[in-house]
Amino acid sequence: MIKDGIKFSGSEFVKLHGVEIDNTFAEAFELWYSSFLITAINKKWVLEAAREATGFGTSMIGCSSEAGIEGFYSPAETPDGRPGVGVIIFAVRKKLETDLINRIGQCVLTSPTARVFAMGEGRESIDTGYKMKFFGDGYEEIRESYGREIIAVPLMMGEFEIEKNLPVSKGVAGGNLIILAQTQASALLAAEAAVEAIDSVEGVITPFPGGIVGSGSKVGSKEYSFMHATTNEKFCPTLKDKVEGSALSSEIGAVSEVVIDGISEDSVKRAMKAGIEAAVKIQGVKKITAGNYGGNFGKVHIYLRDLFE
Amino acid sequence: MIKDGIKFSGSEFVKLHGVEIDNTFAEAFELWYSSFLITAINKKWVLEAAREATGFGTSMIGCSSEAGIEGFYSPAETPDGRPGVGVIIFAVRKKLETDLINRIGQCVLTSPTARVFAMGEGRESIDTGYKMKFFGDGYEEIRESYGREIIAVPLMMGEFEIEKNLPVSKGVAGGNLIILAQTQASALLAAEAAVEAIDSVEGVITPFPGGIVGSGSKVGSKEYSFMHATTNEKFCPTLKDKVEGSALSSEIGAVSEVVIDGISEDSVKRAMKAGIEAAVKIQGVKKITAGNYGGNFGKVHIYLRDLFE
Amino acid sequence: MIKDGIKFSGSEFVKLHGVEIDNTFAEAFELWYSSFLITAINKKWVLEAAREATGFGTSMIGCSSEAGIEGFYSPAETPDGRPGVGVIIFAVRKKLETDLINRIGQCVLTSPTARVFAMGEGRESIDTGYKMKFFGDGYEEIRESYGREIIAVPLMMGEFEIEKNLPVSKGVAGGNLIILAQTQASALLAAEAAVEAIDSVEGVITPFPGGIVGSGSKVGSKEYSFMHATTNEKFCPTLKDKVEGSALSSEIGAVSEVVIDGISEDSVKRAMKAGIEAAVKIQGVKKITAGNYGGNFGKVHIYLRDLFE
Amino acid sequence: MIKDGIKFSGSEFVKLHGVEIDNTFAEAFELWYSSFLITAINKKWVLEAAREATGFGTSMIGCSSEAGIEGFYSPAETPDGRPGVGVIIFAVRKKLETDLINRIGQCVLTSPTARVFAMGEGRESIDTGYKMKFFGDGYEEIRESYGREIIAVPLMMGEFEIEKNLPVSKGVAGGNLIILAQTQASALLAAEAAVEAIDSVEGVITPFPGGIVGSGSKVGSKEYSFMHATTNEKFCPTLKDKVEGSALSSEIGAVSEVVIDGISEDSVKRAMKAGIEAAVKIQGVKKITAGNYGGNFGKVHIYLRDLFE
Repeated sequence: MIKDGIKFSGSEFVKLHGVEIDNTFAEAFELWYSSFLITAINKKWVLEAAREATGFGTSMIGCSSEAGIEGFYSPAETPDGRPGVGVIIFAVRKKLETDLINRIGQCVLTSPTARVFAMGEGRESIDTGYKMKFFGDGYEEIRESYGREIIAVPLMMGEFEIEKNLPVSKGVAGGNLIILAQTQASALLAAEAAVEAIDSVEGVITPFPGGIVGSGSKVGSKEYSFMHATTNEKFCPTLKDKVEGSALSSEIGAVSEVVIDGISEDSVKRAMKAGIEAAVKIQGVKKITAGNYGGNFGKVHIYLRDLFE
Repeated sequence: MIKDGIKFSGSEFVKLHGVEIDNTFAEAFELWYSSFLITAINKKWVLEAAREATGFGTSMIGCSSEAGIEGFYSPAETPDGRPGVGVIIFAVRKKLETDLINRIGQCVLTSPTARVFAMGEGRESIDTGYKMKFFGDGYEEIRESYGREIIAVPLMMGEFEIEKNLPVSKGVAGGNLIILAQTQASALLAAEAAVEAIDSVEGVITPFPGGIVGSGSKVGSKEYSFMHATTNEKFCPTLKDKVEGSALSSEIGAVSEVVIDGISEDSVKRAMKAGIEAAVKIQGVKKITAGNYGGNFGKVHIYLRDLFE
Repeated sequence: MIKDGIKFSGSEFVKLHGVEIDNTFAEAFELWYSSFLITAINKKWVLEAAREATGFGTSMIGCSSEAGIEGFYSPAETPDGRPGVGVIIFAVRKKLETDLINRIGQCVLTSPTARVFAMGEGRESIDTGYKMKFFGDGYEEIRESYGREIIAVPLMMGEFEIEKNLPVSKGVAGGNLIILAQTQASALLAAEAAVEAIDSVEGVITPFPGGIVGSGSKVGSKEYSFMHATTNEKFCPTLKDKVEGSALSSEIGAVSEVVIDGISEDSVKRAMKAGIEAAVKIQGVKKITAGNYGGNFGKVHIYLRDLFE
Repeated sequence: MIKDGIKFSGSEFVKLHGVEIDNTFAEAFELWYSSFLITAINKKWVLEAAREATGFGTSMIGCSSEAGIEGFYSPAETPDGRPGVGVIIFAVRKKLETDLINRIGQCVLTSPTARVFAMGEGRESIDTGYKMKFFGDGYEEIRESYGREIIAVPLMMGEFEIEKNLPVSKGVAGGNLIILAQTQASALLAAEAAVEAIDSVEGVITPFPGGIVGSGSKVGSKEYSFMHATTNEKFCPTLKDKVEGSALSSEIGAVSEVVIDGISEDSVKRAMKAGIEAAVKIQGVKKITAGNYGGNFGKVHIYLRDLFE
């Protein structure tokens, strides 16, 4: 049986585009998020606002949240007919409110010509927009505009308009794929290809720099008890001959990882699938696997081979 | 007397390129900073690392630090012969150490192929690199490389190398220029031109999104006592007819601001001068002024007209 | 009666978003074109190939063709699952074949990892791919791949694959909109907004640099008989008081133009509409008009006000 | 003896950063060029003008000239205090004049806010600026501005200013380096690194798409007598086992090339050196060689190993 270029031999999954897909799962977990749409006068300025607002947001280990760009929206797709960028912020529920206020207040309100609209549906909502009104020092207005309830704060550049309530819901963080390749260049270009393919999947972000993690980690530490996560030595090419049980065969020169957070398990699955299909097309890619921690860390287990059934 | 296109008539300063330079000063203040150089395999990846590491870093009011890109360095200018980006992080001294560990640990160590080198001289130094070693879980090495003392942490993509000690010193934050223009478009393009000119001044950053503040503020609030900073209503075009003492004449349609943090008062002055010279060339710019708070907030007072003497 | 923000008073069209839409038409004309899809290993490289292939292609007056980027395609939308850019080349029928061979042969075949696929349907087809085979010097192959008939030319970087036949058809060139604004900055940002909105309309290109014409012209010359097109003095702000019958009122500081070529009159109309709707949102825009030459130059007359009925 | 990481053993050159530098030369040739500086309101627009003006300009085999971006200039470095891009156009002497008129007239004059200044010294000069005046239809002016003799043509967006005379001189075209690597990804990233390093060398361009040639060629053809250049089968990885005398050992997966044109032999040499030093740092690069044609095609022979003495 052959499906989509994948051969199954009996129950055995063999290869996708000549690349082994490991028989394992990505261990992900539920996490709260808020998604919103930024618009601005042009693509440059909507992108500047979105980048600033989602920067320093790779992992909750040392950042206030995991933040990223979900996608670009053309003027025809946004409430105010201007170019838009969708942003998603993942954090523990009790920190999400403060983080939204800080990221939007410091990075979007300050950005010339930016506006903020709610995106998607939420189980709950946070009145971030309402909090922004205080910057208006009494000169702010609440109005109906673009078919929505808008707070308008007068600024030097004009007005900052933001929808009063932003939805908040539970999503899935920590989806991932790990790429084993012959050279560092292949590992890098394969991860880039995965990120670019994931860019067109709705409802997901890849929160690490440029979407790629060069430093995939294991939970905890053997040496330093105070560390929550440390390097995954079994996947480090420079340690291939120094650690017992290295996961890297002699032909592997480097390993890259893409981490995916999404608004649902399904969106994370679609992103992982699109990412893998793009990565295997890069010459020098030898194997795709995923990060898990024995299954006790996160409740969401996404099996790689299931993605292609 | 005419100097550089500026006319002085008696003691009176008249115009630069036809634009009034206000007889006022930018009120800035001393603040600690650390500057470092990121290098990577190519420009794309050094920029991704630098953007992530300096994101969510516009103002200390709601961010952990004020962070930005200082400049680009060609392979011929960096210790390892790869493309580089200089980064500066400004924060209060006691928060700077944690912020460096978080920003470098979460955003640069994780970024594929990145390295970190110290930039400039410091009064003190912080052993950020040494702290990074714990991620190596015992597999890290300390070595002499590139003529420097380097921590090398094995990673999936290869190694993360970082100089052991990063210098820390006192700089000047809050330098600024404010642009009054006929249209929002002129205010925006003039601020963009200022930021682009400032990009080639050494030792400075413009920490706001894309370098521009669309929401210049005043200290405190008239209405909401819990607010440290609120909109500067006298410079808001939509409030021109609603507030007493608006600073905006009828011909002004919008106001933009550029905030500059630098490693010295002198570097901030050079940046303000370059920014003003670029901004006044944009059609529709009518006046350049600067933000101050009565002179009691910051000890560094930079008079605009002094920049052109 | 109010439609989409446009007021009609009796038979009189008044304003769109506060901006006058002139009661005139864009004079366009039929022209042959070929459209094709370039794919490559990532977005950077597909864009490099497309930019080189469509450069020096603004106007048939001094270029071999009018060429531009039609749009971006995600890996999910292309035959080979890689990022894609659609390109359209407009030229007179007899020059189109040579131009395709030169532009593809010099700029796409040479570009690392690029492939070329036919896009759309054509009245006729040109065997550009077949011509490319000669570069293979006998080592080329003809094969069925991606469900298409492909020429594969061995190269240093691997292979150049191109679909054997590219479709050719008749489209419409010279669609346009002209923006009159208060400042040069408003004219520029309004034209940028128009181009960005047009970017998401299918089947069109804006062949001038960055999509914008800063030098809108009239047919012929009053002074130099050998010139086919010269500056349109009635729309030049610096000549407002020097020429008789200037089209610019005292409040107009600059004028920008966007030229649109499309695969059909309908696609050009949709592009013009999207462009106008984006342009009028920029502060300082006062009037939208269009370029025509008395109606004798081109057979396709697109009335601006008809776009909003 | 060890020099700069290169070992010489007796007269034998061994390796640079572990990579073999072939004992051969790049065969280049003398060619006329003109270089000029474009400035514009901001980096986006100077880059748009420069890209359009240098597009479709990879090789004289099928393009009117070989054209590229020489470098970026900060506002402090340009005559008019705006961001600048240096451009160089190489062509046979008799075609250079027409090509300059077409490329500047169609791609720079049309670009909003652009200006053109002469760069460097020339043996001869071409009055391209003077030719541009005809577009002004009698409304143009000749003036002294920026310390230069300037033609000013009134346009819809304001004025197009261009220096009257552009210098023309003899340079060197066809400098090159060829990179043999383990994977296609390594070959691509190594060539990218070379191009980025060459970007900061003055007086040179890399005219192919993104600076890289994926289709390095040999002179003439064995099979098709009408072809001036065809694929270099001995360097094609897919033909390794099909041609006699393949230059590729079993470990080579792909080959990339960078072609360099410069204003002097010395500038081309500096570029080749910078390119090689950057390329050898990429993991998976095995050998650097250069293209030559028996030494009869071009008079300028640049030996790779001489660059490192």
